[in-house]
Amino acid sequence: MHASPTPAALRQRIRAGEHTGNTSGCAPGFVQCNIVILPEAWANDFLRFCQANPKPCPLIAVAAAPGDPALPPLGDIDIRTDVPRYRLFRNGVFETELGDLSVLWQPDLVTFALGCSFSFEEALIADGLDVRNVSEGVNVPMYRTNLPCTAAGPFAGNMVVSMRPMRAADAIRAVQICTRFPSVHGAPVHLGDPALIGIADINRPDYGDPVTIAADELPVFWACGVTPQVALEQAKPPLAITHSPGCMLVTDLRNSQLAVL
Amino acid sequence: MHASPTPAALRQRIRAGEHTGNTSGCAPGFVQCNIVILPEAWANDFLRFCQANPKPCPLIAVAAAPGDPALPPLGDIDIRTDVPRYRLFRNGVFETELGDLSVLWQPDLVTFALGCSFSFEEALIADGLDVRNVSEGVNVPMYRTNLPCTAAGPFAGNMVVSMRPMRAADAIRAVQICTRFPSVHGAPVHLGDPALIGIADINRPDYGDPVTIAADELPVFWACGVTPQVALEQAKPPLAITHSPGCMLVTDLRNSQLAVL
Repeated sequence: MHASPTPAALRQRIRAGEHTGNTSGCAPGFVQCNIVILPEAWANDFLRFCQANPKPCPLIAVAAAPGDPALPPLGDIDIRTDVPRYRLFRNGVFETELGDLSVLWQPDLVTFALGCSFSFEEALIADGLDVRNVSEGVNVPMYRTNLPCTAAGPFAGNMVVSMRPMRAADAIRAVQICTRFPSVHGAPVHLGDPALIGIADINRPDYGDPVTIAADELPVFWACGVTPQVALEQAKPPLAITHSPGCMLVTDLRNSQLAVL
Repeated sequence: MHASPTPAALRQRIRAGEHTGNTSGCAPGFVQCNIVILPEAWANDFLRFCQANPKPCPLIAVAAAPGDPALPPLGDIDIRTDVPRYRLFRNGVFETELGDLSVLWQPDLVTFALGCSFSFEEALIADGLDVRNVSEGVNVPMYRTNLPCTAAGPFAGNMVVSMRPMRAADAIRAVQICTRFPSVHGAPVHLGDPALIGIADINRPDYGDPVTIAADELPVFWACGVTPQVALEQAKPPLAITHSPGCMLVTDLRNSQLAVL
């Protein structure tokens, strides 16, 4: 039996280009973050957007200054090299994936680290609940909704949600568990009839994969970290960099440290 | 504008026979209790039944000794006179209602005080949620389910639930609020499809009154204090006394004091 690598050891491998894929299941127990990097001129509006929409955009850390690649609260991190794969957007349009940002780093870039569903999924599984996307080994299904975010400058758009089907008693338990973790999307935002939040076909997610929903289950919907990517597409900043989906920043913070009680 | 009477002043009026009706809305902010009184020979099994089924039977206080009509943790109470109306059961069958127990009090009678939904309804309303039975001015609808209680000696039976319809986001908020109050039934036990817990027709409650359910609402179900009455009917003790529905013991305990966090 192998011991899991520490987050620091895993980041060393990522930094050395030895781990370039997704981080699902890596360094269990530790917080993984969604990453958004923006030029300083766009950073303040994005910060306000996150503050106004904490369920889809739960901010865990912001770089201390433009150009600073460190995130000291999260560990010994160089954001230019410590994410396995990045996505580059220009004017809101996806351009390419990258394994390293060193060449194109600019002194005006501001890094944001946001909470991710891996943390609360771990808490649900630890409580004995079935997280369908995990038990079926697929990406969580995600949907665009008609729930509007609060706009901040050019950042706006509707909320994207992820969905995990559960029996009602488990859904109630999931509300209790996730309420303890507001910095990783917190309690679900909806459950039951998908049409009430503008989802036309639960079996055709806008992102990720469909999962099985049993006859005695309700779909349960959480605010999703894809929401800020949709806001970026709408805001069209000249440059924006994010992690590639599933290829997260692995931090030294423990999931249990995010619990508010 | 009248100040609300204190619980002690209200109990004085009840004791004097000046208040004989229901206590809904009386002494707002203070805990009201369901009451069960049993002969000592039956008390231990009933205590175990409550311990094993804390959601439908949340014990708030038990008399210190058989025959003792006081409940010091709840105020200066004489249980023989301080409930507006009682119900007397012999061998599990309802016999009569009474305004006073003084004449038939026995030295072997043990009093149990259980939490009641009035406390959590107050917390939901204070948070801005609509509690339909309150806004429509009717008794809450209650239903027998197929959810079995854990038996203790002769006490057994399925759970009775109360139902309040809510939009999903409000149902999620209600789970959060009620989780803070485990001694007044706690979080809901079910939401969504009533058939999954054995309810054939949501518009025909087994107790109480039907309420309006809007198209965008889910029925949300809480464990209900009628459950111990059903267990009493099954156990058939030679004598059992309860409060009459809605005519509760008003205590000096504040609802906020029941919050576990």
